[in-house]
Amino acid sequence: MPDDPAPYAYEGLDRILHEKARLGMLTSLAGRPDGLSFAELQRLCGLTQGNLSRHLQVLEEARLVRLDKSFEGKRPRTDVRLTTEGRARFLAYLDVLEQVVRDAATAARSSPELKPKPA
Amino acid sequence: MPDDPAPYAYEGLDRILHEKARLGMLTSLAGRPDGLSFAELQRLCGLTQGNLSRHLQVLEEARLVRLDKSFEGKRPRTDVRLTTEGRARFLAYLDVLEQVVRDAATAARSSPELKPKPA
Repeated sequence: MPDDPAPYAYEGLDRILHEKARLGMLTSLAGRPDGLSFAELQRLCGLTQGNLSRHLQVLEEARLVRLDKSFEGKRPRTDVRLTTEGRARFLAYLDVLEQVVRDAATAARSSPELKPKPA
Repeated sequence: MPDDPAPYAYEGLDRILHEKARLGMLTSLAGRPDGLSFAELQRLCGLTQGNLSRHLQVLEEARLVRLDKSFEGKRPRTDVRLTTEGRARFLAYLDVLEQVVRDAATAARSSPELKPKPA
C-alpha cells in the first residue's frame, strides 16, 4: 500500500471486537446461529462468570449480541446470540485481522533475521 | 479441538502485543532488522507523538523493542528495533492470531447465516 499514509494504522481493528476475551466469545458464537448458553460460552472461552458477564454487557450495549433470559424449571438460563449487525461487524473485523496476518507474514519473509514457519 | 476444555480462550493472545496500536507497530518493525526512526514509525502507524511514546515505553519495558537515541546534527533522533525476544514473541503471537482467523472462518462457513467471502 505505497499510497496509504498510515498502512499499519489498522483502523478497522475495532477495540470492542479486538479485546482478547470478546474475540474468543465472538468466534465461539460465529458458528452458532441458535446461540450458546451462558454456561457453554463460559466453558468454551475459559472465563469466570464475572468476566463473561462484564464482556457480554459490553457486546450487548454495542448491539453485537442479544441475550435471551428464560427458565429451565426453576433455574434461570441465559442464551447468547450474535445479532445481524454483530455478524456483519465481526466479518468486517476478520477481514482486517487477515490483513494484519498477511502484512506480518510478508514482513517476516522479507527480513533475514525472522524465520517464518515452514509452509 | 474436542479435548480442549477452553478452545476459544486464546491464552497466547498476549495483551502487550495484541493491543491495536502496538500490533501495528510490531508489524511495521517485523520486516526492518535495521529498525525504523520514531518519525517513520509514527507515520506508518498513524499515531500521535504522545501515543507512540506511550506504546513504545510499554514495548521497551517488556523488552520487545530497543530504542537507540542519537543526534542528526543538532536534532535528536530515536531509532526503534525489535529485540530478539520481541521477534520470537511476535512470531508466537502471530501463530495464535492465525488460529483465530482459521477458527472464525470455519465457524462462518459452518453457519448458514454467515456468508464467508468468496475464496
